[in-house]
This record gives sequence, structure tokens and C-alpha cells, in this order.
Amino acid sequence: LGPVTAPITLLTDYGYEDEFAGVLRAVIAGIAPAAAVIDLTHGIARHDVIAGAAVLARALPYTPPGVHLAVVDPGVGTERRGITVRTFEGDRLLVGPDNGLLWPALERLGGPAEVADVSRSPVCLEPVSATFHGRDVFAPVAAWLAEGRSMAEIGEPIDPDRLVRLGRREPRIEPGRAVAATVAYADRFGNAVLDLGEPEAARAGLRVGRRVAVEVGGTSHVATYTRTFADVPGDSLLLYLDSYGSLALAVNRGSAAALLGLAGGDEVLLRAE
Amino acid sequence: LGPVTAPITLLTDYGYEDEFAGVLRAVIAGIAPAAAVIDLTHGIARHDVIAGAAVLARALPYTPPGVHLAVVDPGVGTERRGITVRTFEGDRLLVGPDNGLLWPALERLGGPAEVADVSRSPVCLEPVSATFHGRDVFAPVAAWLAEGRSMAEIGEPIDPDRLVRLGRREPRIEPGRAVAATVAYADRFGNAVLDLGEPEAARAGLRVGRRVAVEVGGTSHVATYTRTFADVPGDSLLLYLDSYGSLALAVNRGSAAALLGLAGGDEVLLRAE
Amino acid sequence: LGPVTAPITLLTDYGYEDEFAGVLRAVIAGIAPAAAVIDLTHGIARHDVIAGAAVLARALPYTPPGVHLAVVDPGVGTERRGITVRTFEGDRLLVGPDNGLLWPALERLGGPAEVADVSRSPVCLEPVSATFHGRDVFAPVAAWLAEGRSMAEIGEPIDPDRLVRLGRREPRIEPGRAVAATVAYADRFGNAVLDLGEPEAARAGLRVGRRVAVEVGGTSHVATYTRTFADVPGDSLLLYLDSYGSLALAVNRGSAAALLGLAGGDEVLLRAE
Repeated sequence: LGPVTAPITLLTDYGYEDEFAGVLRAVIAGIAPAAAVIDLTHGIARHDVIAGAAVLARALPYTPPGVHLAVVDPGVGTERRGITVRTFEGDRLLVGPDNGLLWPALERLGGPAEVADVSRSPVCLEPVSATFHGRDVFAPVAAWLAEGRSMAEIGEPIDPDRLVRLGRREPRIEPGRAVAATVAYADRFGNAVLDLGEPEAARAGLRVGRRVAVEVGGTSHVATYTRTFADVPGDSLLLYLDSYGSLALAVNRGSAAALLGLAGGDEVLLRAE
Repeated sequence: LGPVTAPITLLTDYGYEDEFAGVLRAVIAGIAPAAAVIDLTHGIARHDVIAGAAVLARALPYTPPGVHLAVVDPGVGTERRGITVRTFEGDRLLVGPDNGLLWPALERLGGPAEVADVSRSPVCLEPVSATFHGRDVFAPVAAWLAEGRSMAEIGEPIDPDRLVRLGRREPRIEPGRAVAATVAYADRFGNAVLDLGEPEAARAGLRVGRRVAVEVGGTSHVATYTRTFADVPGDSLLLYLDSYGSLALAVNRGSAAALLGLAGGDEVLLRAE
Repeated sequence: LGPVTAPITLLTDYGYEDEFAGVLRAVIAGIAPAAAVIDLTHGIARHDVIAGAAVLARALPYTPPGVHLAVVDPGVGTERRGITVRTFEGDRLLVGPDNGLLWPALERLGGPAEVADVSRSPVCLEPVSATFHGRDVFAPVAAWLAEGRSMAEIGEPIDPDRLVRLGRREPRIEPGRAVAATVAYADRFGNAVLDLGEPEAARAGLRVGRRVAVEVGGTSHVATYTRTFADVPGDSLLLYLDSYGSLALAVNRGSAAALLGLAGGDEVLLRAE
């Protein structure tokens, strides 16, 4: 990445109650003391690879180029690989389990240019535990990459086409009338982020300032498609373009996820009124 | 602030589950990689401007002079301004929404010496989203200020007298007998911090070592006014001078907020016994 | 510790909702701006000295040598001492209350080589509050030690033999048949970490791949002694060697602490089947 120690971003489902995230930081500090470590979040819901992947893909464009470590890893201790990926665009190195977690971020960065299997990297902390690869595999790999080691020194090259991918369920559009979209995840404010962009919403006939019927399961709610929360009264349901360019459902000063009973993976039908 | 990159403190209601606070750190690291970033807390209750303001005012004297970014911003996306304020005392630059959040901290630092409207600062990330000004406005503003840019380069000067202020409800003292005081906020230990200092308590006749009747709503409890938690038995209610110089109600190894049903903005009557 | 500012690790029960941990970081940054600060965790359960001590002892071997500040301090404001300890092994300085919190970590590092009472250190922030010694005593002590001040400058020497120790309840082994072990603590995933190592389990006749009867209170459960979570079906109870070398009880994708009703200090009987 260059002559200077690269920054390292962290994203995990380790939470904050335990020392797991702290031990990642400690291992990195021991190997790459000059590396700036940027905690994106350790609050991804446990084992929720889909939510972790969505958050990583959304946050990465706002981070400085460097090493990006992500661990949401229900398959730790199995034969799933640990990988490092150099992206085609943006001079970034992603590190984590090969379970799809890195895939949406990679897609936004032109795909994988070069991949190494780091499961048995010479820089691993030995003995590698069966349950904490963040500490024993991914943190030392990330730290040594930040220090300038090459991917060839760190792992075994593998074919980029063999990476595990995370499928995106494409929105199904009824032109000028409706669109069925998937909830990517709900944030702690209860905003339900949809896997749906503004051009797709426009093709489905949804217009800012208009009302939208939101159908979830068997029930229907009415939302306003608006620019910002303050455009609607408190407790009102709204559809809006969120700050990362995805459409999202929210309740002004409330929780859309709670109101509609939504979680990641659920499908909602949005119908122009 | 001088030739060296200034430290930046962060205080928000973004929580830890999502990547919002992490993205602030990432944007700052991209602009001001040498800036020390000090997370004061991201755990302010959602949209609780009063609690955020109290915590900021209490914590700031313990931070090194620099740039102090605070975001508790229920009005994001409305016409409320984003501001940068240079304090009269202490060589500090505060950055955040103009909704009163910064006001109690400013009052403790001699008031605002110079103010700039940064809502349309040339350093904003474009396009500025309607809902995440922390990322698009306040983080880049703070980072460039830490790098030494002047307030004139960052925003448009505005009259310091026009800042939104957060009123303090003055304690009402019945000399030698009682005082009615407001709860500023309750911390996670259930300690209810009062907007009340020791001299005011003394004027109301409250004395360390004595008992105090604590009246909340229609009910009355008995507390001991003491120096430290360990002076009373477990589960006992106590009034004490907290570590920031405010009087506070606590339960030794328990929660005063739960026992008394207190939240920020509530009024309690303390009567000397 | 040498000519360069030493890194400082932090472990507390301050939580994340309030500014307490942030103020520690701020005080340190004001005194030792070049010190790398590594948050191990601030999520130790309130006042749980035993859990804090176990987590500190487990995490420390993964941190770079430096200053290690730990605060879980139910006796703050009483006559309990504040201490700094230089370890026999590893060139580390531990800072915290003398209530046993530091003891298990010290035991793993060869014991205390040199101890100073820092309760009335000249570097304390004056006036020292009765309730926030983390800010007023331990943070400035840690920061000045990181800057290279000697223990003699920071506090008064005391006899290492007089430190408060935290007793370990030794496992009681019935050779080839069973072992009674204590729960050190449960992590947020519900994994119950036992104060039991692999050699002791082997002496009790427990073998990887075999079943183990787990008796808690009056009830008995069946676990599999396995290498990793993925070796058993979802919802199954397992006994495994955790990533720090302790045996632990877990439920694959569930919570052993919830299933068995376990908390720190509880005793479990493990019987070979």
C-alpha cells in the first residue's frame, strides 16, 4: 500500500461487553504500532453476515484506503477459508472469512483483483484457536498488510472467481405501479434499509411527495415518500432516500422496524397511490 | 489552533450498534490522519439534546483543547443551522447543530467569541444528505479545523448573540429549609444528576451527614446527604456531590432513577430534616 | 518503560452509555498525547471484580507491553488503596484499585516485582473526587507512567506481599471420573468460561469426542466435549477448550448461560460418560 503504515478499519459482531474487539486492537498494536485503527462498528447482530456485508459496503466509500478487516463468522473452525482480497478499484485490501461478508463491498469496488487464502498464513498466532480467528488469523494478517507485507508473503493465491458470493435479491418492479423489495437490515433507530435504489423506485411509479402503500405480510400501511424526517408529523411512517443512497422505511421519532415487524431478509411491497 | 493537528473529541447519540460513529471517525481519518480522535461517548439517549448538552459541559474541562464535535440532532434536515464556535476561554472550537447542544459547554467557557454557519461549508461532502450531517457536514468541518483551517475559510460568520440557547431551570430555594431542583439526566448506573450545586444546597439548609426528605410526585423518600456511596448501607438512597460538582441522587449498588422513577427534566424537592 | 511513550490499555465497568470511559481517554490524551490507547473493553458487568480480573488476565498476553489500567471498583471512596504494580515478567505496569482485580493477571506474569500506593500521588487531579478515581487518580498515573515517570515519582512504595489477592477456587477432581469447577464468567454470547484447564479435565477422565454429564444445581444435562462449535448441531450443549485455554460450556448458536442458568461464581460438576 505504500511506504507508510496503512490505516486499518474494523467491523465485527463481537459486541462491546467482552474483550474480543479489544484484543483485535491489541494484536494489531503489537504488530503495527503506527497503524491508525478505525472501529467502524462491533455492533453487527451476532452471526448476521447479510447485515454485516451491507454495513461494510455502505461504510467503505467513506473510509481512507487501507486494510479493511471484517469478522462476522458463524462458520469459524470449519473448513471455510480466511481470505485477503485486493480490490480492482480504490487500492484497498479486505480481510475476513470467505463467507460472502466481503462480497457486496467488493462488488462496489470493481470486484476482486487478487485473492489469497490466509487460513494457514505464516503470520498467524500459533496455535490457531478453533473459535477466535479474528485474533489468531485476521488481526495479524491485517496488521502485517498494513505494515507493507505483500499478499504473496501472507497467504496462498487463489482464483478470484472461487470466492463465496452473497446473492442480492433483485427488486421485482411492476412498472409505474409497485415494487417488491428486500429489507437489508434495520438499524438501531428502527429504520429499515431496503435493497432498493432511487431509479428503481422511480420506475415503479413512486414519487417524492406522494403517498405509498407499504404491504408487509397481510397488512397494509400508508407512508409518505419524503426527503427528510421533519417533513412528516411525529409517529408517521415515511419512505426516504437514506444517506447512503438506499431507500428506507422510517417512523419520525419512532421505529419502522417495530411498527411493521420488519427484520433483515423480509420482503415489502411498495405500491404507488 | 497552532501548527500541530489538534485533537478532536466526539460526542453523539449514534449508539454503538450501527456504523454511524465509525463513519465519523473514518471521514476524519481521511482528512486529518494525524488527528487524535477521542470518543467521549456515543451513548447519549436518542435525540436527548438536554442530556447531551449536560454531558458535554461536564466532560469538556477534562479534555485537551482542540476541536469538539457534538451531534444530537433531532432537527437534521430542517433549516436549523450547523455551527462552529470559538470559545472565549480555553482555545477550543465547538462544532455541531445550533439547537442548544453546545450552549451549556459554551457558558462554562466564557461564551461564544466567534461563530460561523457551516451548513453550506465548502468542505462538506457533496451531496449533503438530508439525514446524516454528522458525516457530511460536521466531521469534515471538524477535521479541517483540526488541520488548521480558519473559521473564515470554513463557514459564514454569524452574530454570536443569535445562537440557540438552552435554558437552565434555576433551583428554587426556600432558605434554610428546602430546594426544588431539576434532574439533568440519569446515568447508566441510575444516578440522577441534579442541576444543583453545593452552595445552593447549603443555602437550602442541606448539610452533609444529615437526612434529607426527597419528594418526587406525591411521594416522599428519605436520603442521607453523604460524601461517598460506601458511607451508607447497600440499597440506601443517598444525596452526594458527584465527581463533576453537581449534587446527585443515588442508591448504593442500586438505581436511584428506578427507585424514584426519575428522568431528565423531572423536578425533585429536597427538604432538610 | 523506555524512551518512547508506552501504549496504555483500558479495561473498566464504565459501560458505553456515559462519558466515563471517554473522560479517561481525554485525561490521558492531555498528559500523554503520543500514547496509543487500546480499549480492551468497558463492558465488564458493574462491580464484577471477579469477571474483570478474569478478562484482564486472559487478554493481557495479547497486548503489547506497556501500562495496563483497569477499574472495577465497588469500594471507590473507601480506604482501599490505588496501586501501580511492575510485573516480574513482561515489562508491564498495572494500575488500578487494590481489590484483587489485578491479581490473576499478576499471577500469570510472575507476580508483583514492585508496588506503589498511588492513592495520594502528586499527579492526581485535585481535588480527588470520592467517586471517580478512574479520572482523578488512575488515568493521570497511567499517563505519566507511559510518559516515562518512575514508580518512585508516582507513589509510595509498599510491600508486594500486602496486595489484596483474589482466591481461585481450585477444581476438585475425582480422578478418571469427574471434576467440580467454578464459572469464571459468562460472555455476551452466553459462553460460560470455567476456571478449569485441559490437563485438569483430562485427569478427571474427560475426553474430546466423548459425552459429558453437566450437573448444575439439582439437574443434569448432556454435553459433547468437542473442538469447535460446528462439530455439534445447532442448539446442542458443548464443552470445548476456548481460545484462551480455558474449558467453557456453550450452546451452538445459543446461550449456555441461559440454558443452564449459570453466572460467575457458580459451580458445575462435569462427569465423564
